[in-house]
Amino acid sequence: MNAVDIQAVGGLVNAIQENPELAATVWQASVRWNEGFRSASSVRDFEPVHSDEPTGLGGDDTAANPVEQLLSALGNCLAVGYAANATIAGITINELSIDLEGDLDLHTFLGLNPDGNVGYDSIRAKVNLESDATAEQLVDLHARVTATSPVGHTLSRPVDVQIDLT
Amino acid sequence: MNAVDIQAVGGLVNAIQENPELAATVWQASVRWNEGFRSASSVRDFEPVHSDEPTGLGGDDTAANPVEQLLSALGNCLAVGYAANATIAGITINELSIDLEGDLDLHTFLGLNPDGNVGYDSIRAKVNLESDATAEQLVDLHARVTATSPVGHTLSRPVDVQIDLT
Repeated sequence: MNAVDIQAVGGLVNAIQENPELAATVWQASVRWNEGFRSASSVRDFEPVHSDEPTGLGGDDTAANPVEQLLSALGNCLAVGYAANATIAGITINELSIDLEGDLDLHTFLGLNPDGNVGYDSIRAKVNLESDATAEQLVDLHARVTATSPVGHTLSRPVDVQIDLT
Repeated sequence: MNAVDIQAVGGLVNAIQENPELAATVWQASVRWNEGFRSASSVRDFEPVHSDEPTGLGGDDTAANPVEQLLSALGNCLAVGYAANATIAGITINELSIDLEGDLDLHTFLGLNPDGNVGYDSIRAKVNLESDATAEQLVDLHARVTATSPVGHTLSRPVDVQIDLT
């Protein structure tokens, strides 16, 4: 159902119940600056994904920028959450898309308001789901997805971010 | 210097000083689920960027997963910050790379500890910079970059994240 390998997830749950430290995962990425505002990020053995800024912000406009990539990460995370939890609940997903947007005031980033918020003030995700579920099932599904989204909770909670120059 | 179009940034600063509402930017992304844990994110007119999960988490392992994408977004954001602020300070960057990692406990995501933290507990970025700057310049540069990173501050502060099912 939904082409989700729910047995693999179940296997991981069982493994963690037997061996709780398996749940302590560490994820990594490595970014290399090219020039200008262009850089690329490498994750495991996958092809590097490029990053740039629009020309109005001084970039060459060759790729999505980091704050757009952040919205993408949230949308992809919600997609995994819907696929996993729908499958567990026996719901077939016919179509699923997620439109995301975030409000960011550039004053602080540009040094015009040192006391302001540099990051996103707010982020909105609109989930468009076509499925065979009842309205009640959809309410439950949505509640479960939003309660268990790693990226969603990383954004909505303060996280300890340590940045060191070596 | 550093191939950064610092005049474009200066032009934006001037435009915002004359017209402050120009600073209120809205960024967007759109994610489409394919099947399983595979989805793709579209930003403006750029090619969609794919997302998946490792097989151990039930995916097909065809692309970086959302929490890895989040680390990539932070690294790319820091790269822009270094390039911009180094250029403003008259520092030539010879090489710049950033290694990122984050700790995430899967218990809550998998439903094994409903009261735990679903997202990253902590995120670390190691910035490797080769430049012509003095040690003092580097301390200033690092302070300025970390104080003005949109993705860094989005992660370290709680953000209002609104997720609606339509």
